Amino acid sequence: MIISKSSTHFNKKGYASSSISDIMEETGLKKGGIYRHFESKKELTIEAFEYSVQIMTEHYRQAIKDKKSMQNRLFAVLSVFQDLEKGFPLPGGCPLMNGAIEFDDTSSELASLVRSSMIDLLKFVEGLIVKGQETNEFSVDVNAKQASIIIISTLEGSLALSRLYHDSIYLDNALDHLQNYIRSFSI
Amino acid sequence: MIISKSSTHFNKKGYASSSISDIMEETGLKKGGIYRHFESKKELTIEAFEYSVQIMTEHYRQAIKDKKSMQNRLFAVLSVFQDLEKGFPLPGGCPLMNGAIEFDDTSSELASLVRSSMIDLLKFVEGLIVKGQETNEFSVDVNAKQASIIIISTLEGSLALSRLYHDSIYLDNALDHLQNYIRSFSI
Repeated sequence: MIISKSSTHFNKKGYASSSISDIMEETGLKKGGIYRHFESKKELTIEAFEYSVQIMTEHYRQAIKDKKSMQNRLFAVLSVFQDLEKGFPLPGGCPLMNGAIEFDDTSSELASLVRSSMIDLLKFVEGLIVKGQETNEFSVDVNAKQASIIIISTLEGSLALSRLYHDSIYLDNALDHLQNYIRSFSI
Repeated sequence: MIISKSSTHFNKKGYASSSISDIMEETGLKKGGIYRHFESKKELTIEAFEYSVQIMTEHYRQAIKDKKSMQNRLFAVLSVFQDLEKGFPLPGGCPLMNGAIEFDDTSSELASLVRSSMIDLLKFVEGLIVKGQETNEFSVDVNAKQASIIIISTLEGSLALSRLYHDSIYLDNALDHLQNYIRSFSI
């Protein structure tokens, strides 16, 4: 419960700018109650970030589960960003992008976690494209690594715009564009 | 000098998590020296953000200045993101995206400024495309508003990835893709 509520708070407000008082307010616990479970704010932020990543990983897994074709699995990845825009499964946007912007100029343990988690997401998308090439669904002319960067960059950028303006038009336009881009992979 | 040094600090470390002590350290001034110029931290953050936006606006203006065709002007917008990746004209990445991620869940005066500044950037890119259509350089089939969203989303997302990993490959891949996308506008 502490981790879940803390992760929501950190994802919305940022890690560095959130104080233990914020977490006390969010959880209704006293300082001692929090420090009984976590040695330091650092430990709490790391566990909260890991929790966010687990929630997202499970959400991606569920999204692609029933999709047979790799095109539909990639479309399912796009749909996860539509969910994030609506505040689901986590409020506050994509924890990886939030972490990327907050920690790009730092080298903490949390920054390393953000870096490895974003790589996992890029590799996940790249893997779907490579699988599509192996099963002759996608052309081998597609550079899977480059395509994964284009897809994730465009999704993260447009989600940030939609969240900034509380208007889905930015993400919707990007999804429309990316659907055509992904369709162009097919043989 | 206070504004310039503060804007660098805020752009790298974030606005909410930076304290007046950080600004004292950055500028070498005592607290009284800072508050002689600014009524509050809020006033300082707003002036520092506005300063960042001015620097960026001037940099975009310089980048497109000698470019005649709208295609080359759009390519010049891409080159500004290459500069940002190298920490120029501001260290810490794009102040608009940094602000978007930090303030998307808030409704402060600074959040409003981030929103209006990001709209200005989108409109600037949209305007270049519309101009290209008016002068018969670009096809009227291109949806200028959608295209501006795609270009800015992809640039902002890939810049964030390149800054996260201190590796230009993410931005380079995105620029390669966007150059082809922009070339597809031409009649």
